[in-house]
Amino acid sequence: MDIKQYMKQVGQQARAASRVMARADTRVKNHALITMAAAIERDAEKLLAANARDLEHARAAGLESALLDRLALNAKTVAGMAEGLRQIAALPDPVGSITDLNYRPSGIQVGRMRVPLGVIGIIYEARPNVTADAAGLCLKSGNAAILRGGSEAIHSNQAIAACVREGLLAAGLPETAVQVIETTDRAAVGELITMKEYVDVIVPRGGKGLIERLINEARIPVIKHLHGVCHVYIDDRADLDKAVRIADNAKTSRYGTCNTMETLLVAEGVAAAVLPRIARIYAEKGVEMRGCDKSRAIVPEMKPASEEDWSTEYLAPIISIRVVPDMDAAIEHINTYGSQHTDAIVTEDYTRARRFLREVDSSSVMVNASTRFADGFEYGLGAEIGISTDKIHARGPVGLEGLTCQKFVVLGDGQVRT
Amino acid sequence: MDIKQYMKQVGQQARAASRVMARADTRVKNHALITMAAAIERDAEKLLAANARDLEHARAAGLESALLDRLALNAKTVAGMAEGLRQIAALPDPVGSITDLNYRPSGIQVGRMRVPLGVIGIIYEARPNVTADAAGLCLKSGNAAILRGGSEAIHSNQAIAACVREGLLAAGLPETAVQVIETTDRAAVGELITMKEYVDVIVPRGGKGLIERLINEARIPVIKHLHGVCHVYIDDRADLDKAVRIADNAKTSRYGTCNTMETLLVAEGVAAAVLPRIARIYAEKGVEMRGCDKSRAIVPEMKPASEEDWSTEYLAPIISIRVVPDMDAAIEHINTYGSQHTDAIVTEDYTRARRFLREVDSSSVMVNASTRFADGFEYGLGAEIGISTDKIHARGPVGLEGLTCQKFVVLGDGQVRT
Repeated sequence: MDIKQYMKQVGQQARAASRVMARADTRVKNHALITMAAAIERDAEKLLAANARDLEHARAAGLESALLDRLALNAKTVAGMAEGLRQIAALPDPVGSITDLNYRPSGIQVGRMRVPLGVIGIIYEARPNVTADAAGLCLKSGNAAILRGGSEAIHSNQAIAACVREGLLAAGLPETAVQVIETTDRAAVGELITMKEYVDVIVPRGGKGLIERLINEARIPVIKHLHGVCHVYIDDRADLDKAVRIADNAKTSRYGTCNTMETLLVAEGVAAAVLPRIARIYAEKGVEMRGCDKSRAIVPEMKPASEEDWSTEYLAPIISIRVVPDMDAAIEHINTYGSQHTDAIVTEDYTRARRFLREVDSSSVMVNASTRFADGFEYGLGAEIGISTDKIHARGPVGLEGLTCQKFVVLGDGQVRT
Repeated sequence: MDIKQYMKQVGQQARAASRVMARADTRVKNHALITMAAAIERDAEKLLAANARDLEHARAAGLESALLDRLALNAKTVAGMAEGLRQIAALPDPVGSITDLNYRPSGIQVGRMRVPLGVIGIIYEARPNVTADAAGLCLKSGNAAILRGGSEAIHSNQAIAACVREGLLAAGLPETAVQVIETTDRAAVGELITMKEYVDVIVPRGGKGLIERLINEARIPVIKHLHGVCHVYIDDRADLDKAVRIADNAKTSRYGTCNTMETLLVAEGVAAAVLPRIARIYAEKGVEMRGCDKSRAIVPEMKPASEEDWSTEYLAPIISIRVVPDMDAAIEHINTYGSQHTDAIVTEDYTRARRFLREVDSSSVMVNASTRFADGFEYGLGAEIGISTDKIHARGPVGLEGLTCQKFVVLGDGQVRT
């Protein structure tokens, strides 16, 4: 297979399809989504059989168990994919919405219309359900999508793609509006991230290695999710019951998610009162604690934290803990070591809450809430294509709106510029 | 001079200053802007003397006259810089504004806060007034700026930078919030566009060569302005008086701006009625016309247009003219040859106007108005840092809001995620 030629064709088809998608009616797009959902439910057995082939190959290739977990589908996850597509159908259509249409002194009216980005390239790893989610989100937001899943999920992804195509065709939309790349050749990624005539934005869902490759090699804008080194800062004016509850939930409700707290910061004034309570919970749940000297003076069973710990995303039952003099030191720590993902303060102090919200430069900043809330569903955006830690275009959970932009529309009556 | 070391220092200073700028009060920022304006007026003679040195070197180096024009300051342009800074001071401060703060079923409130991007690198060519404009816009939007002007304007830019510094210091802001790069070494640009620890976004204001270099070499997001191949399409249901007025203004009010029309498209049904009227005006004003065969059958004095003409940004008294069967053909032409900058339809037909607005994928889409309106001031944004032809973050004129993004803020009362 000539990868360059193949990808060029995929790109040209996507560009042509994107023009049809951009003007598709909401009803038509929803019809496609609901048909896809029904096809996935009807084909559940087929999807599971395709997935079983992938799993077999993956096991034979000696893939690690975490990867096998992410790759595996079951009746429940298949039903979840269908449900996800129906939820996307139920979300409001962002495309075409016009805001701020105002008359200007010249007599023209100027406003902004929300429009699709065009062609979105999505590069992801093992999870096959991303195929359905990403297809649904791109479709509803009026974009064409080129999906490049992990090679280990190729059979699962193609089985899902067949359902997606069925939905598109049933709604009279071009089947090339969502294309799943059929080759597992890595060169296809190289083409995808550089063919700027055909692709408008790349959304990677993968580890640091993929992101680094994109930073260096992509010639197309990327909506990046780097990593989540999230903090909770317990202020000395915190309600300590809330602090314990949040410190517990932010760390232990799930260890492997990007919105999980990785570092707990505690104001010196309350450290002796609150740290032992939190440490007891972590110890019970088997969370390894790595603390600064002051933390270890209070909870001696902690291991010592190294400088490297402060910037580590564990994605595991491990936490780093540091006692800080005050909120300013906490903000300084977060801005130095954090990844601008999600950071929270626990405090009853109005002025500090207000300052923390303004001065912490992260995609989500919280007062008295668990970092685990940083999520498209919890925020009311519906499904998300990822969580952006970038500073332009979109920060935080990226839902339908993040897959669109706004153009200017001008309505006149023959006006000319003097 | 060790360029790498110098740029690293500039970057570190900018990053540190950006944190101060992000939390600066509106009043303080406005005080800085107004002081800068006063300093520029007071130092007008000094600025003109510095500019005279630049002009002398430029002439000695044999720079072309268009470049000398852009480089030259006079009493009026200096006054314009001061006035521009006062206008920026008068604009509303976008930073910190919270929108859509709503309660979610979990009990948390979720909203979006507008925040600065951080450190903005601006790369521009001859015009020294960009130094004042860019400094003002970055400052008001709470960002730190690193400015890299053209080497031919180095003395002018440094004289302006002294006024900018004076304003920052008078307001108690870090003077490193706006840094003008002091070397003319091109390696400084290479550092600026790759030091991602210190710079959040690059805004180039320059020609195609600069943009191409950035696409290939930048490791930081770029807000790009590619070029403006703008169209006016005269529909067969157009009011022909409006059509003539708009075709005249969009082409001839200024030849060198990116929102100038470069290609006129005319529906076959009205071509014979309207093209001779427009051609008369162009001929009188000395605009060279390059037409398709059908256009030339109506106006024989036109030169023939080549395939290349359809995608050319002339920035000169030249226009390409094409007769098309209908609006669909016009949209097809625009989407094929245009640069997604600004495109207008002239029509009295409601349904066609509505379709054109939706289906033309350009940063500004207009009905019955001159493309020349595509401008930050005309749109009510105030001064602009450029006009984006990108599809993510910002499309069209980029003012203060385009130099910010939105983060999520979450207000809770101890909520945890279940």
